[in-house]
Amino acid sequence: MNRITTIAFDADDTLWHNENLFEEHHQKYCQLLSEYHEAKTVEKTLFSTEMKNLELYGYGVKSFMLSSIETAIELTQGAIPSEELKRIIEFGQQMLKHPVELLDGVEKTITQLSEDYRLILITKGDLRDQERKIAKSGLSHCFEHTEVVSEKNVETYSRLFHRLAIEAKQVVMVGNSLKSDVLPILDLGGVGVHIPYHLTWEHERIDTTPTHHDSFHELSSIRELPELIKGLVTP
Amino acid sequence: MNRITTIAFDADDTLWHNENLFEEHHQKYCQLLSEYHEAKTVEKTLFSTEMKNLELYGYGVKSFMLSSIETAIELTQGAIPSEELKRIIEFGQQMLKHPVELLDGVEKTITQLSEDYRLILITKGDLRDQERKIAKSGLSHCFEHTEVVSEKNVETYSRLFHRLAIEAKQVVMVGNSLKSDVLPILDLGGVGVHIPYHLTWEHERIDTTPTHHDSFHELSSIRELPELIKGLVTP
Repeated sequence: MNRITTIAFDADDTLWHNENLFEEHHQKYCQLLSEYHEAKTVEKTLFSTEMKNLELYGYGVKSFMLSSIETAIELTQGAIPSEELKRIIEFGQQMLKHPVELLDGVEKTITQLSEDYRLILITKGDLRDQERKIAKSGLSHCFEHTEVVSEKNVETYSRLFHRLAIEAKQVVMVGNSLKSDVLPILDLGGVGVHIPYHLTWEHERIDTTPTHHDSFHELSSIRELPELIKGLVTP
Repeated sequence: MNRITTIAFDADDTLWHNENLFEEHHQKYCQLLSEYHEAKTVEKTLFSTEMKNLELYGYGVKSFMLSSIETAIELTQGAIPSEELKRIIEFGQQMLKHPVELLDGVEKTITQLSEDYRLILITKGDLRDQERKIAKSGLSHCFEHTEVVSEKNVETYSRLFHRLAIEAKQVVMVGNSLKSDVLPILDLGGVGVHIPYHLTWEHERIDTTPTHHDSFHELSSIRELPELIKGLVTP
């Protein structure tokens, strides 16, 4: 059997709350545009603008701010006063300034695991914002390496593991997104642990769960992780 | 003497044109706001908004777009029609989509140096945009490592060299910014080569040039670099 040496963690919605801030922004945003369109249309158009801009902008709050402004102008055919657009900028800045709120059990589990394993953090999104959140989390000393990537797929993980001289089969990757955190690591021969967050951005949703896969595990809380990993390394 | 093993390059305005795109955007932007304020006021206010937001947003085109929108609303006290703000978004998207135009002599010099030295690329800014430009440049195969950082200072370079197991005294760092590319490497005991670009963003300007420093060199073109480096490694 292969000994697990490395545990890689996703950050947003795995270690700390994130999607709830977007959800809150969506509600304020729909409210702002409620005199022009019903919430469903606003949501649908915003998502479509985000997808159109994804390749160009990448992930993160600034991209979301820009797509929100573009959508508001489009949906109101330019009728929205620019002072209202200023509020969208303010919402976004509040998101960037928001304190990092760790998920239940994260601090204890990460501290405990860091004593026996090499922990790495692999997160996608905006470089500055992710670095700030890692610093604010108070957990950065537990991670031997942190990497902000612009996309999470087999190629990204493979390149990173190669650079860090880690074999994928020695890695457990833990995250809330099946698409970005779990499936690529299973493809590479590692262990994928899915810990769902109560909200999932539409872009991260997939229809199938790899329940048939021997190296796939689903947990309801990060608190269950040490026990699971213990089971993996004992023959 | 120390043998030079590694040449680290900045990217924007060192390998390819960049500041000229910002300059072009500034002109269009001042034109857009010309009925409200004279260009000087627009420039001054935009720069001040960018500096206010720098810690929060970081560098790059998306940050510039957001600060441009915020400034336009502020300078017109909300009177600017949102359709005009849409043009600012379009200007920014054009910048992100712009082809990468290598500076004169870059392709030949980089290809030549990559045969004898380990080349690395260290650039700051927006992760997705910088990765895209590196790919578009056609030069990525010449670099053993590329790193996008959120700030360029002694700490960033030091951490990166440590991670790549490179000694700073074996490094020549080449760039157009004295502040971001040259001074930190001199502090770390490496060689700093300054190749000025004809435009410098106000934030990167410093008053003093370290002409007295033995490891500081200034070139007028990247074409002169191989000859300079040859001189450094011959006792």
